[in-house]
Amino acid sequence: MSGEPGAGFSAAELAAACGGTVVGDGARRVSGVRSLEAAGPGELAFAADAAAERRATASAAGVLLARSAARLPGRTVVEAADPSLALVAVLGLFFPPRRAVPGVHATAVVDPAATVDPTAEVGPFVVIGAGSRVGPGAIVEAHAVVGRRCTLAEGAWLHPHVVLYDDVSVGARTEVHSGAVLGADGFGYAVSPTGIRKIPQVGGVALGSDVEVGANSCVDRATFEATRIGDGTKVDDLVMIGHNCEVGRHGFVCGQAGLAGSSVIGDRVVLGGQVGVAGHLRVGDGVKAGAQTGIQSDVPDGANVNGSPHMPYRDSMRAIVEIRRLPETARLVRILARRAGLSEETTE
Amino acid sequence: MSGEPGAGFSAAELAAACGGTVVGDGARRVSGVRSLEAAGPGELAFAADAAAERRATASAAGVLLARSAARLPGRTVVEAADPSLALVAVLGLFFPPRRAVPGVHATAVVDPAATVDPTAEVGPFVVIGAGSRVGPGAIVEAHAVVGRRCTLAEGAWLHPHVVLYDDVSVGARTEVHSGAVLGADGFGYAVSPTGIRKIPQVGGVALGSDVEVGANSCVDRATFEATRIGDGTKVDDLVMIGHNCEVGRHGFVCGQAGLAGSSVIGDRVVLGGQVGVAGHLRVGDGVKAGAQTGIQSDVPDGANVNGSPHMPYRDSMRAIVEIRRLPETARLVRILARRAGLSEETTE
Amino acid sequence: MSGEPGAGFSAAELAAACGGTVVGDGARRVSGVRSLEAAGPGELAFAADAAAERRATASAAGVLLARSAARLPGRTVVEAADPSLALVAVLGLFFPPRRAVPGVHATAVVDPAATVDPTAEVGPFVVIGAGSRVGPGAIVEAHAVVGRRCTLAEGAWLHPHVVLYDDVSVGARTEVHSGAVLGADGFGYAVSPTGIRKIPQVGGVALGSDVEVGANSCVDRATFEATRIGDGTKVDDLVMIGHNCEVGRHGFVCGQAGLAGSSVIGDRVVLGGQVGVAGHLRVGDGVKAGAQTGIQSDVPDGANVNGSPHMPYRDSMRAIVEIRRLPETARLVRILARRAGLSEETTE
Repeated sequence: MSGEPGAGFSAAELAAACGGTVVGDGARRVSGVRSLEAAGPGELAFAADAAAERRATASAAGVLLARSAARLPGRTVVEAADPSLALVAVLGLFFPPRRAVPGVHATAVVDPAATVDPTAEVGPFVVIGAGSRVGPGAIVEAHAVVGRRCTLAEGAWLHPHVVLYDDVSVGARTEVHSGAVLGADGFGYAVSPTGIRKIPQVGGVALGSDVEVGANSCVDRATFEATRIGDGTKVDDLVMIGHNCEVGRHGFVCGQAGLAGSSVIGDRVVLGGQVGVAGHLRVGDGVKAGAQTGIQSDVPDGANVNGSPHMPYRDSMRAIVEIRRLPETARLVRILARRAGLSEETTE
Repeated sequence: MSGEPGAGFSAAELAAACGGTVVGDGARRVSGVRSLEAAGPGELAFAADAAAERRATASAAGVLLARSAARLPGRTVVEAADPSLALVAVLGLFFPPRRAVPGVHATAVVDPAATVDPTAEVGPFVVIGAGSRVGPGAIVEAHAVVGRRCTLAEGAWLHPHVVLYDDVSVGARTEVHSGAVLGADGFGYAVSPTGIRKIPQVGGVALGSDVEVGANSCVDRATFEATRIGDGTKVDDLVMIGHNCEVGRHGFVCGQAGLAGSSVIGDRVVLGGQVGVAGHLRVGDGVKAGAQTGIQSDVPDGANVNGSPHMPYRDSMRAIVEIRRLPETARLVRILARRAGLSEETTE
Repeated sequence: MSGEPGAGFSAAELAAACGGTVVGDGARRVSGVRSLEAAGPGELAFAADAAAERRATASAAGVLLARSAARLPGRTVVEAADPSLALVAVLGLFFPPRRAVPGVHATAVVDPAATVDPTAEVGPFVVIGAGSRVGPGAIVEAHAVVGRRCTLAEGAWLHPHVVLYDDVSVGARTEVHSGAVLGADGFGYAVSPTGIRKIPQVGGVALGSDVEVGANSCVDRATFEATRIGDGTKVDDLVMIGHNCEVGRHGFVCGQAGLAGSSVIGDRVVLGGQVGVAGHLRVGDGVKAGAQTGIQSDVPDGANVNGSPHMPYRDSMRAIVEIRRLPETARLVRILARRAGLSEETTE
C-alpha cells in the first residue's frame, strides 16, 4: 500500500484494496472510518444498504462506501458489489490486524514442560501448564490460564482472562474473547438412591480453525472424547455449549444461546440469540433458528424454525398471528357453543 | 454522626439520618441491621411493605424501620414515608461506602504511558495499557485488565477480574462487577460465497455516570463509534449488550437479558430477566418488558409489553388465559365443525 | 487396587470396583475409557442404555460396561444394574480425583490476617483477603480471588479465575468452576422521584457441602443474611442465582437458568436449561421444570411444570399441540362465525 500511516488513503487506493470502483474524486484522501453520522470530510463512511444510502446523503463524510453512487449525486463514492465485504478490506487498511509481539512476559508462569514458540506472545500473569504448546504467532493475553496438554495452533489468540482447562485444542487463527471458559466439566451425574454422583468428565474440547468464541462463553469438556466446534464457526458472548456437542463449520451461534449435551449441529447453521437446543439432538446443515427458539427434537437439513418448542418458521408466524387473535376467537367459540348447547361436559 | 464505631446508633440518630420519625424509645441503640427473622434486640430490621410489617410483629429486632408504627404496637419504630429509601441511608451509616485506598500495588503492571491519579487505588495483578487514565478516587481491584486509551472517571470502581478492552470509558461513580467484559468485539461479519469474513470492530464502549454493570455481563464494542449506556442505568448479571446499542438513562436491565446489535433503548426503561431485544430496534422511553419477553419490533414510549414475540401486556395476559383454555376451546370447535359438516378441506 | 499405573485394570478388577459382574474374559485388561466409537481393543467403553447397547455391538472396545450382556454375545461385558453409577467407580480408577498439592505459590498475595491450612493448595496469582480461612485439602487455583471473611471448608475447590466477594462460605468438597462469581451485589435499588438509589447489599453467600457451581455462573450476595445453595445441589454454567434466594438440597439447576431475588427453591428440584424463576416465589420440593420454563407463581411440591408462564407439564403438552393446530382451528371458527352471522361486534 502506498498510503503512509497518518496520511490516510485516497479513494482510488481504497477502491483498489476492496475491488471497488471510484465514482467522483479518486484522489480524495481520508484518514479514518466512522459512522455516517460522525464522519467528517476527512473520513470515510459506509452505507450497507438502501436505507443507509438515504442517510448517507446527509453525511459529511468525504468518501462513501456503498453499493451504488446512483443515489449519492455529487459525492465521492467507492462502489462495491458487496459493501460489507469491501468494508472488511478497507478497515484492514486503517486498522491492521493485531500481531503477536514475540516474547514471554516476565510475570508469566510457564511450566517447564510446556513449549512456547519463539514467535508467540505471552502476556502478564499468564499461567501455562505442563505439556501445553503455544504455536507460532499465537497470542496469549494477560491473565489467561492454559491448563495441561493444551494446544494453540498458529495465530490462535486468547484475549485477557480466558481459561482453558486441561486437554483443550484451539485451531489456527481462532480467537477466544475475554472470560470465555473452555473445558470446564460437563454437567454429567449419576442419580442414585444414595445421592447424586458426579461422572468424571475426562474428555476435552477441540476448536477448529478460524473459529471465534465470544466473551464469557462456555464450552464444556466432553465426557470421553471432545466437544467440538468446526472450522469458521462464530460463537457470540455468553453462549453455552454443553459437553459432547459437535457444532459444524461456518455457522453462527448468537448471544446467550445454549446447547445442552451431546447434540450435533450441522454446517452453516444459524442459531439466533437466546436459542436453546435440548440434548442428544441432530440439527441439520443449513438450519436457521429465530431468537429464543426452543429446539426440542431433531431438525432436518435446511429447515427454518422458530418458537418454543420449535416449529417451521412459517407455521410459527401463523401461530403468532392467531395467538394474538385468540381472545376474540375464543369469545366467538363460546358464543357458538352456548347457542349450540355445548358445555365442558359435552362429549361426542 | 455521634455514633461511634461499634457503639452503633440510637433510634433517634437513625431517624435523623433517614429523615424519619421515631415512635417509641428514641434512645434505644442498635449495632447492626439484619433480616426480620434474624435480628435480635440489639439490631434493626426493615419492613418494606404491609406483608413485611405483619412478619415484623414476630421479629425480635430492637428497632424496626417501617412506613408506619400503627401495626407495630409497643415497638420502637423509625417511621419513614419510603422505607426502602430510608434503608439506604441507614445502611450507609452501618456500612460506609468503600473508598479508594490510594496507591498502586507492587504487582500491578501499569504502562508508562498510562496515568493513575494519586488518589486512586490499583490492586494486585492489575494490568493497565498505554494511554489509559484512572481518575481521582477510582478503584481498580485485583486482576482487572484495562486496555489502551481507556478512561475511568472520578470514583469509578472495577471489581476483581473486570476486563476492559481498548477504548472504553467508564463514567463517574460507575461500578462494574467481577467478570464483566466491556469492549469485546461486536458480532459483525460479512458473509460471502467464499466464507465468513470478520468486520473489524473499531469503535469502543462508553458508560455514563452512576451506572452499575453486574457480574459476568458483556457490553460489546461498537463497529465505529461507541456502544453506550446512559447515566444511572443499572445492568444486572450475565446481561449482553450487543455492539452499537444505545441504552438510555435511569433504566434497569435485569439478569440474563440480551440486546442484539444497534438497538436504541430509551430512558427509564425496565427490561425484565431473560428479555431479548432483536437488532436495529427502537424501544421507547419508559417501556417496561416482563421477564422472558422477546422484543422483535419497535416499542412506543411508555408501553408495557410481554410475551415472545412481545405484545401489549394486557393482550398478553388475555392470550395466556386463552392458551390455558385452548385444548377445551379447540375441542368445542371440533364438535361444532363436525356438526356443521366442516373439514380441513372446507373453504368458504 | 492391584492395577499398576499404565498397566490398566482387568475386567474382573473393574467389576469388583463397581459392584458388577463379568460376562466373558475376566482377565482381559484395558488401559483407558473411551466412547463406544473411539475405543479400541485395549480400552473400555460404556453403554448407558438400550440404544447405546445397540451401538456397542459395532464397538471395537475390549471391554464393555452395560446393564446386560444379553445383547452383546461374544463380548467381554461388565454388567452393572446401574451402568452410570458403575461408570463413576470405573472412571475413578483410571482418573483418580485431583488432590491438593499443599503449599502457597510464591506469587500469591495472602493477607496476613487470612489463614491457609498447611494441607491446602494455593496457586499462582491468587489473592486472599483478611479474615478468610482456607481449610484442609482445599484447592484455590490460579487467579482466584477470595475476599475478606470467606471460608473454604475441607476439600473445597476453586478453579482458576473464580471470584469470591467478602463473606462467602463454601462447603466441604464443593467445587466452583472458572469464572464463577459468588457474592456480587444483589440487584436491589430504591426508586425515588430524585433517582435510583442503590440499597447496600450487606449479606453474603453460603454454599453447602458437595455443591458444584458451573463456569461463569453468578450467585449474588444477600441484602442482609445469605443467599444459600443446599448440600449436594449441582448448578450448571452461566446460571444466575439472585440475592436472598435459598436453593434446596440435591437439586439440579441447568445451564443459563436464572432465579430472580428472594425465591425459595425446595429440595431435589430440577430446573431445565434457560428456565427463569421470578422473585419472591416458593418452588416446592421435587419440582421439575422443562427447559425455558418461566415460573411466575408458586409451584407446589412434586409438580412437573413447563411453558412460559409455567403450567402443569401435561397441560402444556396439550396446549402446544393445539397451538400448532391453531391456524386451522381459527379458520374453522371464522367459517362457523360467518355462517352464524357473528362478528367482532357481536356480544351476547
